[in-house]
Amino acid sequence: MPISFANRDLINIEDFTNQEIEAVFSLADEMAGSLREQSDVCRGMIMASLFFESSTRTRLSFEAAMNRLGGRVISVVEMGNTSLAKGESIADMARVVGSYADIIVIRHPWEGAAKVVADYADVPVINAGDGGHEHPTQTLCDLYTLKKERQTLEGLKIALWGDLKYGRTVHSLAYALARFGATIHFRPGPGLELPEHVVRKLTTEYAGRLEKYDGVEDVDEKGLFPLDAVYVTPSGPHQLANIPAVGIQIELERGVDALYVTRLQKERLDTGAEGQEVDKSYRVVDKRLLGEKGFEDTIVMHPLPRVDELAYEIDADPRSMYFKQAERGVPIRMALLALLLGAREVDIPEKRGQPFEQERGYPVYRSDTGLRCQNGTCVTSQQTETRYIRPEFQMVSREPLTLRCAYCEHEIHPKYIASSKWHQGIAENKRYYYADSFMLGRIHPENLIIFDSEDDALARGFKLGKRLVHG
Amino acid sequence: MPISFANRDLINIEDFTNQEIEAVFSLADEMAGSLREQSDVCRGMIMASLFFESSTRTRLSFEAAMNRLGGRVISVVEMGNTSLAKGESIADMARVVGSYADIIVIRHPWEGAAKVVADYADVPVINAGDGGHEHPTQTLCDLYTLKKERQTLEGLKIALWGDLKYGRTVHSLAYALARFGATIHFRPGPGLELPEHVVRKLTTEYAGRLEKYDGVEDVDEKGLFPLDAVYVTPSGPHQLANIPAVGIQIELERGVDALYVTRLQKERLDTGAEGQEVDKSYRVVDKRLLGEKGFEDTIVMHPLPRVDELAYEIDADPRSMYFKQAERGVPIRMALLALLLGAREVDIPEKRGQPFEQERGYPVYRSDTGLRCQNGTCVTSQQTETRYIRPEFQMVSREPLTLRCAYCEHEIHPKYIASSKWHQGIAENKRYYYADSFMLGRIHPENLIIFDSEDDALARGFKLGKRLVHG
Amino acid sequence: MPISFANRDLINIEDFTNQEIEAVFSLADEMAGSLREQSDVCRGMIMASLFFESSTRTRLSFEAAMNRLGGRVISVVEMGNTSLAKGESIADMARVVGSYADIIVIRHPWEGAAKVVADYADVPVINAGDGGHEHPTQTLCDLYTLKKERQTLEGLKIALWGDLKYGRTVHSLAYALARFGATIHFRPGPGLELPEHVVRKLTTEYAGRLEKYDGVEDVDEKGLFPLDAVYVTPSGPHQLANIPAVGIQIELERGVDALYVTRLQKERLDTGAEGQEVDKSYRVVDKRLLGEKGFEDTIVMHPLPRVDELAYEIDADPRSMYFKQAERGVPIRMALLALLLGAREVDIPEKRGQPFEQERGYPVYRSDTGLRCQNGTCVTSQQTETRYIRPEFQMVSREPLTLRCAYCEHEIHPKYIASSKWHQGIAENKRYYYADSFMLGRIHPENLIIFDSEDDALARGFKLGKRLVHG
Repeated sequence: MPISFANRDLINIEDFTNQEIEAVFSLADEMAGSLREQSDVCRGMIMASLFFESSTRTRLSFEAAMNRLGGRVISVVEMGNTSLAKGESIADMARVVGSYADIIVIRHPWEGAAKVVADYADVPVINAGDGGHEHPTQTLCDLYTLKKERQTLEGLKIALWGDLKYGRTVHSLAYALARFGATIHFRPGPGLELPEHVVRKLTTEYAGRLEKYDGVEDVDEKGLFPLDAVYVTPSGPHQLANIPAVGIQIELERGVDALYVTRLQKERLDTGAEGQEVDKSYRVVDKRLLGEKGFEDTIVMHPLPRVDELAYEIDADPRSMYFKQAERGVPIRMALLALLLGAREVDIPEKRGQPFEQERGYPVYRSDTGLRCQNGTCVTSQQTETRYIRPEFQMVSREPLTLRCAYCEHEIHPKYIASSKWHQGIAENKRYYYADSFMLGRIHPENLIIFDSEDDALARGFKLGKRLVHG
Repeated sequence: MPISFANRDLINIEDFTNQEIEAVFSLADEMAGSLREQSDVCRGMIMASLFFESSTRTRLSFEAAMNRLGGRVISVVEMGNTSLAKGESIADMARVVGSYADIIVIRHPWEGAAKVVADYADVPVINAGDGGHEHPTQTLCDLYTLKKERQTLEGLKIALWGDLKYGRTVHSLAYALARFGATIHFRPGPGLELPEHVVRKLTTEYAGRLEKYDGVEDVDEKGLFPLDAVYVTPSGPHQLANIPAVGIQIELERGVDALYVTRLQKERLDTGAEGQEVDKSYRVVDKRLLGEKGFEDTIVMHPLPRVDELAYEIDADPRSMYFKQAERGVPIRMALLALLLGAREVDIPEKRGQPFEQERGYPVYRSDTGLRCQNGTCVTSQQTETRYIRPEFQMVSREPLTLRCAYCEHEIHPKYIASSKWHQGIAENKRYYYADSFMLGRIHPENLIIFDSEDDALARGFKLGKRLVHG
Repeated sequence: MPISFANRDLINIEDFTNQEIEAVFSLADEMAGSLREQSDVCRGMIMASLFFESSTRTRLSFEAAMNRLGGRVISVVEMGNTSLAKGESIADMARVVGSYADIIVIRHPWEGAAKVVADYADVPVINAGDGGHEHPTQTLCDLYTLKKERQTLEGLKIALWGDLKYGRTVHSLAYALARFGATIHFRPGPGLELPEHVVRKLTTEYAGRLEKYDGVEDVDEKGLFPLDAVYVTPSGPHQLANIPAVGIQIELERGVDALYVTRLQKERLDTGAEGQEVDKSYRVVDKRLLGEKGFEDTIVMHPLPRVDELAYEIDADPRSMYFKQAERGVPIRMALLALLLGAREVDIPEKRGQPFEQERGYPVYRSDTGLRCQNGTCVTSQQTETRYIRPEFQMVSREPLTLRCAYCEHEIHPKYIASSKWHQGIAENKRYYYADSFMLGRIHPENLIIFDSEDDALARGFKLGKRLVHG
């Protein structure tokens, strides 16, 4: 039965289920075969392409897609936030542009900005990259290439290679791969390991299991694939068949399906000696590497632009997929635009077994008590946006108390708590406690008040509760 | 009978009669109901969108409109005049782009630039803002929202609120409202009063009458609408029915149709203490204000972008019209483009009564005698343009001698006059006089020569006429 | 019989034969008559418009052309190479954009960049200007205007006027005119003479003959056309009919077909006294000049933008063709796009007689030996491009040894040579020689090795050959 995606947004890759992702791919397959014959699909419709950060490739890919569909494009390309000079908020821009266009594609340096656009515009919104947060259509393109080259997305073995610390595309891809039950091997450049919060999300929300391999220098010497760590997902009993109970050597002899290489983001490194050291030791993927045992059937992927990490000599190798990845971005984005605009519908394939994902449903905390995201590039931290955005968090852990910003997904660990129930009538009873006090367990989530500073608590008439601190 | 607008320009709002404005609105109404079904109206036609100053909103609105009509868009977006670096004139650019496109939309920081484009391009030209001079399509959008919300444009009561000094949209709107017989109330921010020349134009060319209310601090205390002045138009006997002979209190008890709020243009203020004072005392339109007596049926308008002058809390209020104003810009611009391109025609409604406007027909003065506009941002003052533009003025007053620049409408008061008749044959007779001499009355307009300096007069062989100075 | 241009590139004007140029013109003629009726010709196709240098006029002309054809446009407008900041190569950009679009139009400040795009993109590529190298569509527009106004391109008499040193359009035009057997008169501004290599190419590759006129000051005094030189082509016996054996006076009394004026590129001049002198003596084409004897039927052409070299007073003169030249750029580019996209085919007229051009077929030299182009703005000199571009040269002369860069056409004179045959087996035999040694004649071209420095030769195990130096 055809399902409509009309009026939905794509802000995080998690906005689509595995089945929906596969449905996008089947429409992309259909369109890829007849790119020039789609020019009536979105006739009369307008896409607003709002790029407040340099990203020529992504912008052109979206604009080519909309044009292939016969739709029209209106564009804003602004580096350095010139439009923000007048002090206009993202919400106002979203409302206005949403009244001009039928769909909005937004790239913005502030993390969470795409969510704000989606919250305020009356039309579907696609996140084309919001700071270091998410870039879900890049992940769709990556998955699509895996699907085309491996015929399935389930149970793949993928090595993520290079800058695993700053590359947002790698984080999104890791989550998405985990959802499809992949075994993921991490091979970071020196000092470019996967951040803790990404590891935690993979192990807690996607039920993965982490295995560390320490003796890797030794492996490197032998010319083998020098993994620092291997991440294996999922760990649930029904998926055990997917987890090869093998050591790294055996794994590599069997080979991986894909090597996903990322650019060293030099602009983020120190310019001093340390940065140059990282640069130097960032291993290049070249003919020699691809000639090693275990890589015979391994495809090489890269989100582009590359700098030096992929040698030009392998461009003609049939395993090199990076230009095909870029090329396939057009039919993927065509399918996505046609679906969200309601111009096409697709059949959702029936669920096959369980998704490799936990049910979450974290409690939501909306702050009126001074609690703010600490991420300086979060959209909620910006002067123009604080006028109307009410901070919102998911409580992802109680011990230690951990709130995840609903906009940028950065986490904070607030210091103080209180209950909105305890002071009814009697001001004397208004007490606040340290967040690691046992009192946290006694407060019903819907009554919970959280403070980030003593001043915030005092300003609202609370006093520190005696003897209940540091429980 | 359908009338064609083909090949006309829209540079000043005065280029269209009241009836023509209403005709644009009736076509906009028709198109607004079927935005996506207009895609054959301008098929095969091209709009050049030339933005030499930041104005994302206006540009996107025009581009969306042309795309909705099935036309095509070619764009120039240049801040900082990079194209002018090569020294090319606006006239040359207009001629060339006019040979590529079927219509030109121009935004330029120089006042009068749009008129130059219209003078030299072979296609219709729309002024999308020329410096501080005019922005006629913004005025059309404002009037259209008034028409949609109040069902008529005639005899409305409108309060103009905020920065009445620097906001060009407010000046254009005031003239347009006056033409439709509105009663206009001015409520400027401190130090942001309407400029004298705007007041003069309203009272002389639109036959308005000005009433001052001095005791307004007192009114403010009572929480009422703190008007500094009330402008009542028109004053002609046949329109007296439109002029409520009431004091301010009564006026406010009856309410105004619309509150038109403008952004405080902070970039124009001193950054010192005075500027901060203005900023601070710029009253915000919020829930409390809208809750006051007399505002029950008052719509709130704003040309956007806003900064702090409209509180976000009133966005959901049904009286808040600013996002609808922006949205309605698309059908208005669609109608305008279709008409000027000759792709559609409309019926002009029959004249109902007299227009609220004086016949003017000022004498025109074209200068070969060194007389120049004194406005530094006037297009006639720019080095690249003086090569070919011959200054031109309307003589709007003889006492004192006042010339209005035909490009930017700024006024000058030249010092000296002479006659081209008096010196025939006898060089001794070539005399010039002070402009306030009674000799001005004796010179036939077509023989009048005007000098801005003694040097200009002497260079042309004139000597100061004795005893006829300072008549 | 209709011929397809599908999938061909236009990088240099020499990529098209005279017959092909005429074929483009006949299609342009057809389209010019019905500009708005071509909107199905390229339906469903996408042009990528990549402008990495300011060129509003050329970009708008291409974009208008593609839109007139019903195709779609995706654009990059980047001054200051912001996209290059990430270190991406032109080859990678070409491959990616070539997978989004059906044709690429590229403007780039690096000479030879368009060739690189053509080498790597899978779609047709049009050079819209690569630094100071070529701008072939401007030349097509110039020739088209000559054809329209003079009914033929063969045997015309053209005066090139002004900045003949820096103006790339003038160089390309001179070569193209030569191919059609034109007589070209050069009238440079002071210090702005045609560069030696252009003169050499005209006399060697196009079989032209150069005549110098020294007594020109005298001519100038009489108000005649003050030619510094007259270039007459072709000199082959079968074309003698085209060469009027006349002196300059007679030539001018007969008149020239066109005066092609160029802008003084002030940004290239010294800002000091010398530059101001050039500026001052750069003679303006004005009414007085056009009123002189011999100019009655001379059309005035200019690639625009003009600064002061064409007086505005001649704009209305029927001989002034510069705005028509710009206007005709649209049908020319429409024809070109339709042909390269394979959307239209044209009949190639039969060859009439010989082309006015020499067979060339210079030997090609590809360098692995450190030999590089010395032009700092050549694409092969750029850090991002050296990773994958292998320098390539045409050997245009053996005495002195002269290699022309295959990318930017700048010439180098390398110092040392060797043979790849002489050292087989015996390392002692690896000798290198000065390039002006008689040994050059003994080395078969396919064995030739060329070095630019002693270090390069020594690094490859060669020693300087004794006694064979400076032969």
